[in-house]
Order: sequence, then structure tokens, then C-alpha cells
Amino acid sequence: MIATPQSMHFKAALPLQSGAALRDYALSFETYGTLNAAKSNAVLVCHALNASHHVAGLYPGQDKSEGWWDNMIGPGKALDTAKFFVIGVNNLGSCFGSTGPMHINPDTGLVYGADFPVVTVEDWVNAQARLLDALGIEALAAVMGGSLGGMQALSWTLQYPNRVRHALVIASAPNLTAENIAFNEVARRAIVTDPDFHGGHFYQHGTVPKRGLRIARMIGHITYLSDDVMNEKFGRKLIAASQSEAERNFFFSTLEAEFQIESYLRHQGDKFAEYFDANTYLLITRALDYFDPARAYGGNLSLALGRASAKFLLVSFTTDWRFSPKRSREIVKALLDNKRDVSYAEINAPHGHDAFLLDDRRYMGVVRSYFESIEVTP
Amino acid sequence: MIATPQSMHFKAALPLQSGAALRDYALSFETYGTLNAAKSNAVLVCHALNASHHVAGLYPGQDKSEGWWDNMIGPGKALDTAKFFVIGVNNLGSCFGSTGPMHINPDTGLVYGADFPVVTVEDWVNAQARLLDALGIEALAAVMGGSLGGMQALSWTLQYPNRVRHALVIASAPNLTAENIAFNEVARRAIVTDPDFHGGHFYQHGTVPKRGLRIARMIGHITYLSDDVMNEKFGRKLIAASQSEAERNFFFSTLEAEFQIESYLRHQGDKFAEYFDANTYLLITRALDYFDPARAYGGNLSLALGRASAKFLLVSFTTDWRFSPKRSREIVKALLDNKRDVSYAEINAPHGHDAFLLDDRRYMGVVRSYFESIEVTP
Repeated sequence: MIATPQSMHFKAALPLQSGAALRDYALSFETYGTLNAAKSNAVLVCHALNASHHVAGLYPGQDKSEGWWDNMIGPGKALDTAKFFVIGVNNLGSCFGSTGPMHINPDTGLVYGADFPVVTVEDWVNAQARLLDALGIEALAAVMGGSLGGMQALSWTLQYPNRVRHALVIASAPNLTAENIAFNEVARRAIVTDPDFHGGHFYQHGTVPKRGLRIARMIGHITYLSDDVMNEKFGRKLIAASQSEAERNFFFSTLEAEFQIESYLRHQGDKFAEYFDANTYLLITRALDYFDPARAYGGNLSLALGRASAKFLLVSFTTDWRFSPKRSREIVKALLDNKRDVSYAEINAPHGHDAFLLDDRRYMGVVRSYFESIEVTP
Repeated sequence: MIATPQSMHFKAALPLQSGAALRDYALSFETYGTLNAAKSNAVLVCHALNASHHVAGLYPGQDKSEGWWDNMIGPGKALDTAKFFVIGVNNLGSCFGSTGPMHINPDTGLVYGADFPVVTVEDWVNAQARLLDALGIEALAAVMGGSLGGMQALSWTLQYPNRVRHALVIASAPNLTAENIAFNEVARRAIVTDPDFHGGHFYQHGTVPKRGLRIARMIGHITYLSDDVMNEKFGRKLIAASQSEAERNFFFSTLEAEFQIESYLRHQGDKFAEYFDANTYLLITRALDYFDPARAYGGNLSLALGRASAKFLLVSFTTDWRFSPKRSREIVKALLDNKRDVSYAEINAPHGHDAFLLDDRRYMGVVRSYFESIEVTP
């Protein structure tokens, strides 16, 4: 399947939850499959921290350019583009095409940098709704997302209950725990205390706070994987252990990577620091922190979800300690308290939070069945 | 109880596991209680990452100067100094008195800095044994430690099986998991990539890599606490929420601390960066990484612990995800495989790894009973 990035420009100001507004902004998006005449087969896919609108398919002539959920979405796949018209959209504040900190602030003529306004999950959903307006799509057959993407899917059912028939909320949570926030905060502090950050205006200084981005990504990777899969994949294996582990002596160094897990994390950090924007990292982790639909209801999630009228599929993964099954079950319970139609699958998978991006027969089977059950009037 | 720091100087070179050696080094230590005539009542207490020889008691005229395990050790306490002669010793490489990176290298006349040799748990135990030699103590009634201190206690039973009658190994593990190493590695990278680190020779530059130390400490604190206790203590509470949570709007900032967990972690990081040495942090986390008595036995812990002849008490805490009960049970199993005398208590406590430093009736009761059962010939 070939993917073609598109962009939509919006002149009118988008009011944000913070009280600020964004005007003259653009959203990058891709679509796969064909919108039917009744415009009843649209599925919006929301992305998480470091992904984009490039959800599925390949860019012509670019090897390994598969979208981040290409194993899930395409002709004949769990989310079948022969049946559904799938839309991937890049969120505001990102560094992958939609208007973000690296773009020009129309009010000043200068790069936004640290002045890009703080955006929330609710703001993103509002922007996505405007994109649907522009595409002439009144209601979604489904909205779907994993992790932070799942939060957007959940928020869609609360902000636009009449515009979404089904919501697939995968490896997600009704809000972040203190521990989740703590990891985000350490990552942010690593970035903003990097001398190359320059208060977020590093573009003008010709620098990139790579030290901070590397640390942020290393912390992230630890939380994406389960303890089990880390032990299985890396354990205490040494790098450059040509023969038996026991035969190679340690380097006895605090600076050299000694264990394979160390070189893996360093490599992930280095890669990330080459392409990801530091201000985007701050914005997206902050959107995660802020999301909490129950807050306006005194913490009562059942009350908060009373507005939702969609049908739901919730999926969690047993070894996901970042967004544990317990958190998905909170959403399930709150929906059931409202007598909503909700299916829930807790997948026994070893890969931790990363599992939502990986192939797992049972996981894919559950999502496939759910999409097969969605009726689409032509 | 009054504590009096002492120091012992050692002229003879201490050969290290790395092949290097340390000469003209000093060990800081404190003792509590009285060594009996038979010298049969000595208990050595080993410290973990950021502690010292100041294990119990107060420094005269200094409020809040209690030793780090003062709730455990003293007259009438679980480790009763009316019965036992307790020794706390600061390890080599530390920044609290014993010879470390901030001291002068006698070979060069310059501050060690990054040139301080990598030290291991085994090296520390060898240095501790020399201190006992100097104090005229042939055998310990017990050796005791939590976390990294527990690794030293375990190593004592393997390196000097005839010199230790009992070992209390608390909240510890037979080695670090890949995830444990990963957290250490991120903390180290934060320190060594801080421009103020200067390859470990920051003393000459008049700088302190505080940014890195702060990040390291914040990461550490996350892993010391359980998810549960973090949620109970901080949850999603906002700072400066004067009235009800819901009434205060967010700051909508990526730079300002918004949640209490953020200001808590920042405060812990700031405090730590004021007093802890960056090179010491690298050395001690590396000693943790390297400890693995089973390595020389092809990973077979039962074979590795065959040398031990001491009696053991193992204690773990249910919510400790840094050194989980599973890891303590591995040690218990390996000792039982060798038909050793081992008691094991798994304490249902909410505080995560930190629990080993806190008051818990059942925990203190178990340790007290164990010490009461140790016979001391006068």
C-alpha cells in the first residue's frame, strides 16, 4: 500500500484549553482506503508520543518506510482498508509536519520554539474534528489509538459523543499515575537543563539539546519494555563477548558500555536525538500529564464517562507496567457503570507497553473481530 | 547514643579485582556498643548507594544527625548495642570520609577524580576484612546490609566463610537485572554528559556536574518508591492548590512544576547535587552492576553459594520492584540447595525499596528475633 502525505491549512484560530489560540496552522495527514458514498466508513487513528500521521503504507522508493502501525492497518489487515477509510493525523506541536515549535509564529514572524502554546489531548481532538469537517466527514465509524493515542480516542467519545460510533482504546489509561508523571518530569528536566536548550530557543543558537533528548529517550525505552523481556533480550550479556560470557573479563570502566543493555539504550538515545524535537518532547509529555477527564468531576471517572455514547473496545497487556491492565479496567468499570457497550481484552504478552505496536496473534485477532463487527452502511 | 567517627589508615596496597591497587588509603568507621573479651559479638553493617559509616547514633550538638539506620541500631533496638559491638564502615570510593575520588592519588600527587580505580563489592569486603584485622576481630557474629549493603553481606559469606557466623541480607539481590542496570546507566550518562563533568576531572575546573546528579537522583527516587506509595503520597496533586484541586487551573507550562511529585523530585535532586560526588555515583552504581557471584559458576547461583557456611536471614518487601522478593527467593533457594540454615521473611509493606530503611513493626520484629537468637559467648 502506497502512502501519500497531505496537508490541510486552517486560517481560523483554534482556541486552546490554556486560553491561548493557534491560527494559520496546518495539519499533516494521510488516508488509506476509500471513503464510501455515505461517508460512514471513516476510522481516525491517533498517534502517541513519537509517531506521526504516517500510520500505514510505504513511501514510494523508500525501503523500510512502513507506517508505525502498518502491521495493523492495510488491505486485509485487522483494520482493513478495503472496508474502512482510515485517516492518520499528526498532532499540533509535533515535529513531523503539522504546525509545531519549529514553525513560524504568525504573530511574531519568528520561530515558535518555547513559545509554542501548551496543547492538550482535548485541543488535539478539536483540531482533528476540524480536519474531519474539512474532509466532509460528520461521524467516525471508529476512533482508535494506543497509549496517548488511546487517550485521544477516549476523549473523542466525550468531546464529540455524536461524531463517533466506536472507540478502540489500547494500552491506555484514564490519566497518568504519579510514577508516570515522574518519569516524564525527569525526561523534561534532562532536556531543559541541557545547556544547548537555551530556554527552548535553541534553533536561533544553532544548537540541539541532544544530551537531554538522549536521556529522555533512554528513560522512555526502559518504561516501554517489561522487566521480563529486557532480561530475555539482554539479561546481563556483555558487549563484545566473543566466546563464553565468563571468559571475558570486565572492562572495569564507568564510562565504557559494558553490558548490551547499555549499548542498546545509548543507541536508541543517539538515534532519537538526531530526529526528534526537544520542544515537541516537552509538549507531548505535558499533554500526557494533563489528560484527566475525571478531574472536572472530582475524580469520579464514572461520572466523567457518562457523556460517552460510543461502543468501546479496551485492550491492555499483562506486562505493561507503564499503562497497566489495572488502568484499562478502571475505564471498563466506569463505562459499565454507565451501562455502555464495552468489550475488554487483557492480552498475555511479554513485551510491556511496546506490545501495542507489535504483532501478537491474539491481539490482532481481537482488533480484527471488533472491526469486522462494525456495520458500515454504504 | 553518641556516635564518634574514626579513621584507620592502611599503608599496604589493596589489590583490586580490576588488577589495579590502592595504597595509602583510609577507611572511616564508627562503632557502637562494646567489644566483649572473646571478641565474639561484632556485627558489621554495610551501606548502600548514598550512605556512610554513620549508621546509628547522633553527633553531639547536631540536631537530626541520626545515623541512617538509627531506627534499627542502638541500645534496646532490633540490633541491640547492649549485646553487640556494631561497626559501620564507609566504603572505598565514597565521598563521606574513606579514600575516594576527591582525595589525592599518592602515585601522582593529584586528586584522583576519574582516575580512581573501579571498585567492586568484593574489593569493599576485602577492605572491610582488613579493618577487622586492625581491630583484632577474627570473626563476625553477623554481617548485615540492605540493598547494595546486602550484596556485601552475601559476599562476606563467600569471600570469608570462616569469619562470619550470620548474614542478614535485606532487600537485596544476587545480581542486577537488565532493567536495574538500565536505570544505573541512564543516571551515569546524565552525569558524564553534563558539560561540567569534564571527563571526571571537574574538581580542577571548579565545577560540579549538578545537572547530571539531579537527574540521577530523580531517577533513583522513582525506583526506590512503589507506584502505590507514590500515588498515595502525591497522586495527581497540584502544587499551590490552595483550595480544592479542581478549582485551580493548570499553569499550562512545560517548565514550571505543576504536580507535587515534580517539585518533590526536583527538591530531592537539588539536595543530592549539593553533597554527593559525581565520581562516587559512577563508582557505586558500577559496583552494583558488576556484582554477580554466580558469574564464575556459569550463572549457577546454587554452585556459587556452596562456599557459604554462615546462617542467613533474608528479608524482602512485597512492593519493592527494584530488588523484588523474587530476587531474594533466588538466594533463599540457592542456599537451601546447599542445605544451609536460612530464614526468610517477605514483608507486606507499601513503601517499595525504601521500606528497608523505614519503621515497620513486622520487619523490625523479624530482625530483632533473629539477633536475639544469635548466641554470643562472653
